[in-house]
Amino acid sequence: MRIAFQGEPGAYSEEAAYGYFGPVETTPCETFEDVFAAVTSGACDSGLIPIENSLAGSIHQNYDLLLRHDLHIVGEYFLRVRHCLIGFPGVDVAEVRRVISHPQALGQCAGTLRGLGVKTEPVYDTAGGVKLLKASGERTTAAIASKRAAEIYEMQILREGIEDNPENYTRFLAISPEPVQPAAEAKTSIVFTLRNQPGALFKALSVFALRDIDLTKIESRPLAGKPWEYLFYIDFLGAIGEDTARRALDHLGEYALMLRVLGSYPKNKR
Amino acid sequence: MRIAFQGEPGAYSEEAAYGYFGPVETTPCETFEDVFAAVTSGACDSGLIPIENSLAGSIHQNYDLLLRHDLHIVGEYFLRVRHCLIGFPGVDVAEVRRVISHPQALGQCAGTLRGLGVKTEPVYDTAGGVKLLKASGERTTAAIASKRAAEIYEMQILREGIEDNPENYTRFLAISPEPVQPAAEAKTSIVFTLRNQPGALFKALSVFALRDIDLTKIESRPLAGKPWEYLFYIDFLGAIGEDTARRALDHLGEYALMLRVLGSYPKNKR
Repeated sequence: MRIAFQGEPGAYSEEAAYGYFGPVETTPCETFEDVFAAVTSGACDSGLIPIENSLAGSIHQNYDLLLRHDLHIVGEYFLRVRHCLIGFPGVDVAEVRRVISHPQALGQCAGTLRGLGVKTEPVYDTAGGVKLLKASGERTTAAIASKRAAEIYEMQILREGIEDNPENYTRFLAISPEPVQPAAEAKTSIVFTLRNQPGALFKALSVFALRDIDLTKIESRPLAGKPWEYLFYIDFLGAIGEDTARRALDHLGEYALMLRVLGSYPKNKR
Repeated sequence: MRIAFQGEPGAYSEEAAYGYFGPVETTPCETFEDVFAAVTSGACDSGLIPIENSLAGSIHQNYDLLLRHDLHIVGEYFLRVRHCLIGFPGVDVAEVRRVISHPQALGQCAGTLRGLGVKTEPVYDTAGGVKLLKASGERTTAAIASKRAAEIYEMQILREGIEDNPENYTRFLAISPEPVQPAAEAKTSIVFTLRNQPGALFKALSVFALRDIDLTKIESRPLAGKPWEYLFYIDFLGAIGEDTARRALDHLGEYALMLRVLGSYPKNKR
């Protein structure tokens, strides 16, 4: 199997691809759009895209791409983001004077870095920072990135799990040309729009509440260029192959101006 | 007035600070946490923080900081993100071979950049890229950043509005130690948690629907460390000084495990 992901080799997305698919071949893509193109063209069997992070929020761009492409969500995966402090082999943490990484990773490790009394310098990418470090040969500099980035560039992990907030999860979605029919506990992701009327969302949610269907995510997003209209993202427990879910979606169709099922897939643990 | 923002001088947050507050003194801060600290300590009168972007989603970290600090939302501002291609004075667009910027900005201008047939190189920050460019003296390189970044570093705007999707807005919140009492059309932002019971959210929304209160934002966020509990973010039209809104919040208090009003403030246009 060949799996497309966005980022440099050693990116957290690649780590998630191995975690979810097992030992597969991975194809690094420069942009999320390239990931969708690789799966649509058949160059890759599936793609793995981040859809939300517990600290940074939902990635709307990937919802846009899901709406623009005819691919299906076939699975989800939660990656616990564990940042590593990475240096040259043989270097001791006490020798480190300067740490480079993506600004978001530096921010998520600010407490640890203050404790070490090091200077920080932002670079464009976590795994890319390890590549830069290796090329520089600077033994008093370290980078923050995934464990896998350290392995790829044959560098040493000086410290593992240096993020200040351990509740740092990214949820990834697996996307494929063909839908799946989840056998066990399933989750379904939908996108819809409503008329701009008082109580419209309340009515829309009633189709789930009246059928005791559990929602696991709800998010509104102002519609581009239409200041008073909204897209809604909802995830609920159940598969569209089941009667209750199908009836709820039929019912929602009576209110929604647009309704699109992005996929039903096996629910994963966080 | 002295206003704290996160980023380098010339950052989009600084542009938003001038757009919202007018001609004020601005204080660049390294992190969002530093912005909150500057306002809490009194070093700055107010801060301006990004809370959501139309393409990139909500910035949960700033919701966390709002919950952890005793500051109030006193206003909102929508900044249309207009990327500029910035080069040395006297340079023509046709001479540009390489473009540097933050990966997100490069991604948002990918169409334009393909049309120009240039190479791209990611750097840590948009305004920071202009600073790097200036220092390098490379006349065939350009940077993507705000108009203001070009002015600060006395560089030339080669092209303005080069983003592929014009619907690129960032919503900012103004935060202050004291709340305001909005006179005209107001918006209120709240955060709450609910018991994990079927239909809990439906009940919670009924307190607004039954009183014809319009919601302008709803978002669920899994609670850190509690896989089946959620924080909800809601913005609604109205001020907590008004009877209807106060009654709705009293009613919501009957269901919510935690309920916090982040502020009532004048509604702004997008």
